[in-house]
Amino acid sequence: MKAATKIEARKLKGFQDYDPAHMALRFKIMDVVRDEAARAGFMPIGTPAIEYADVLLGVGGETDKQVYRFQDNGERDVALRFDLTLPFARYVAENHGTLPMPFKRLQIGDVWRAEKPQRGRYREFCQCDLDIIGIESLEADVEIILCLQNVVARLLDTDFTMLLGNRFLLSALIRNCFGDINPEQESAALIAIDKLDKIGRPAVTELLIKDLGVNLTQCDKLLDILAKQKNGDLSALANDNDERVTAELARLQETANIVNECMRQSGKKLGKVKIDLSIARGLGYYTGIVFETKIDADPDFGSICSGGRYDHLVERFLNKQFSGIGGSLGLDRLAAYLITNEKLPTLSPTAYIAVVSEAERQLGFTLAQSLRNLGISTEIQLKSQKLAQQFKRANQLGCKYVITLGENERLTQTVSLKNMQSGEETRGISITDVAQMLRS
Amino acid sequence: MKAATKIEARKLKGFQDYDPAHMALRFKIMDVVRDEAARAGFMPIGTPAIEYADVLLGVGGETDKQVYRFQDNGERDVALRFDLTLPFARYVAENHGTLPMPFKRLQIGDVWRAEKPQRGRYREFCQCDLDIIGIESLEADVEIILCLQNVVARLLDTDFTMLLGNRFLLSALIRNCFGDINPEQESAALIAIDKLDKIGRPAVTELLIKDLGVNLTQCDKLLDILAKQKNGDLSALANDNDERVTAELARLQETANIVNECMRQSGKKLGKVKIDLSIARGLGYYTGIVFETKIDADPDFGSICSGGRYDHLVERFLNKQFSGIGGSLGLDRLAAYLITNEKLPTLSPTAYIAVVSEAERQLGFTLAQSLRNLGISTEIQLKSQKLAQQFKRANQLGCKYVITLGENERLTQTVSLKNMQSGEETRGISITDVAQMLRS
Repeated sequence: MKAATKIEARKLKGFQDYDPAHMALRFKIMDVVRDEAARAGFMPIGTPAIEYADVLLGVGGETDKQVYRFQDNGERDVALRFDLTLPFARYVAENHGTLPMPFKRLQIGDVWRAEKPQRGRYREFCQCDLDIIGIESLEADVEIILCLQNVVARLLDTDFTMLLGNRFLLSALIRNCFGDINPEQESAALIAIDKLDKIGRPAVTELLIKDLGVNLTQCDKLLDILAKQKNGDLSALANDNDERVTAELARLQETANIVNECMRQSGKKLGKVKIDLSIARGLGYYTGIVFETKIDADPDFGSICSGGRYDHLVERFLNKQFSGIGGSLGLDRLAAYLITNEKLPTLSPTAYIAVVSEAERQLGFTLAQSLRNLGISTEIQLKSQKLAQQFKRANQLGCKYVITLGENERLTQTVSLKNMQSGEETRGISITDVAQMLRS
Repeated sequence: MKAATKIEARKLKGFQDYDPAHMALRFKIMDVVRDEAARAGFMPIGTPAIEYADVLLGVGGETDKQVYRFQDNGERDVALRFDLTLPFARYVAENHGTLPMPFKRLQIGDVWRAEKPQRGRYREFCQCDLDIIGIESLEADVEIILCLQNVVARLLDTDFTMLLGNRFLLSALIRNCFGDINPEQESAALIAIDKLDKIGRPAVTELLIKDLGVNLTQCDKLLDILAKQKNGDLSALANDNDERVTAELARLQETANIVNECMRQSGKKLGKVKIDLSIARGLGYYTGIVFETKIDADPDFGSICSGGRYDHLVERFLNKQFSGIGGSLGLDRLAAYLITNEKLPTLSPTAYIAVVSEAERQLGFTLAQSLRNLGISTEIQLKSQKLAQQFKRANQLGCKYVITLGENERLTQTVSLKNMQSGEETRGISITDVAQMLRS
């Protein structure tokens, strides 16, 4: 233990500690998610942080190379989960026979991705996932989106917008403009379009020309349509003769309308949903509706909540299809926004019990116990010190009241109570009364 | 995605999923821990799951070989935490200048140990840790123990006992009986004594003779003393001439008395503390008081809550000493006990909204939204189906009421409400009234 050479106290790059105010904020966000999920009938589950690597890998997109993968002590090829959706698909494959299908699930947990760390982006972060699996209906889309909107509306006091896209409609637009392209090209087009907000139209045009071999006219046609639809002009799709295009578009619009109407009727005006077909999402497994949520005043902050419909994830394990839709609140992204905007909770105890000598030790703890039993957060002096130092400690911790227990108080079974803000002090309060005073 | 060969849906040995009832129980335990910790002024922090390996390794005991250790993508030597105490020591070493010392911290998190899986023992489990660092006082011991007792008393409705030992006193007893032994022998003796409950006196005697080279008379002397003190006879120590022995014994007794008196006065009779110097604890870093909590009716179930005082953990990183005391509630152990004893929470929503046709879709969601806003957990039909099937689904989910919305209800803005237990059905309830009826 007392080695001459010290170990350097340090964290890994891309990892962070959470100090008390930050951690209290994280708990608050989790509590809101859990509460809204319970109200809407989502059931919590948990899955391990570590899985067999093949359970997680090979779904396309950019995740495979970001996975923490290693051999465990039994030489198994294992990996830390990089999201909660693939472990959930494995869970459904193992349990579908006993789950009440369609199954609505909540899962909150840390995930790990060996990405390049950036401001507000870490290698360990917490996701809060809502999914409905075993059904492909519009109602399931509404349920997920509505619940996520309710969560965000309770946590943010600024306007935010959930943008709704649809992978099928975006692919239809791409094929309308680019002609028949192969799946790899389509995937490259999705990845390029997903970057529109980040790198801008000229850079995306360049990518499309380079990666897909299309010409500038084709690119302009597609990007013009995408720009127009952002402003509500969906004519390019509304005039499509493909029946599924018409149906998917109508469904997307009805989904948006129902959610907006619910939010409006319940007086939650901060959050709205809006169709934006340029939303593509990076993950490879989405097949239908996709969405992400941005803060209106700070769109560059990125998405705090995102997800979409996936049809084939459970099929990785089973000869059986379970269509699902899921959305994930990025707890750490939201926390980072709230911290930047100084919404940190305070953790000050209500009462501080100052104890003059060891003779009042038992009395001090008995009083602390009875205050705490009433739900009053209470600190107690942890060693014999001068009263001045005890008041200093109470101040440092931000305690609202100091209760002093000395010989006189012990003999008379009373306390002195000082209001630390007003400075007012009252002596001779009976021990049974002090709890009631602090409660009110 | 549609690969011909399927991936086998399976978990790693020693890992488990938590189904909804189990997960709800875990959340409930976490909530009680958080609430009791907040009442007692413990502040929550978080640290990463992955650390540089040297931060975690080399503290003695049996943990080093159980650690999940690997090279990350940047070829760093990293490991998953096996407890929350060593990451906390690293946190204190990095932050001691800004923490309000003594610092009382709560941390809840998963830890990983590649142990041999056994019934109720997993390779991934959740710990709820309370620590006070930067002070060596009796009051700090009392604070930790009292808070843990309050947590367990809220979660168990059966008698339990926290056994208090002390590493210094146990070492004194060992030296009194065995003469001067070296630190390795002392450590071997502690490990052997720690197994008394599990393997019994004859096996421990054998271990002591083999590992320490002591004789049977010496062993009998020690084990007789340990047996006697279990029944309250502390004469072997009370008569010791060593001043520190006398002082530590008096401190241990006062700690037990204060905690028991607090629990008695607040009417929490389920939990008591009791001195038992044969408590040694396996972890190498403890230096003073050590404790573990057993369920009276089922002592073989093992400890659900344990910890102790450590003086040197922060010194691994700094030329500075911070004495600390910490205790850890084994969330999964406690959950396993409660599950075996059928204390699983139910997750049934209050209301189920059955929707006759797509024309009532919007109305259904608006009603669901307003019920949920009032805190009423509400399910809604997720696709058009015959009413009989919708009632079947409501039954499957255990919903207490079914609200039916059809054309008639839509036109009159009323609902039908059926009590699923009594079978009673009421028609023509106005939509604004139904929420009030469900609330009461």
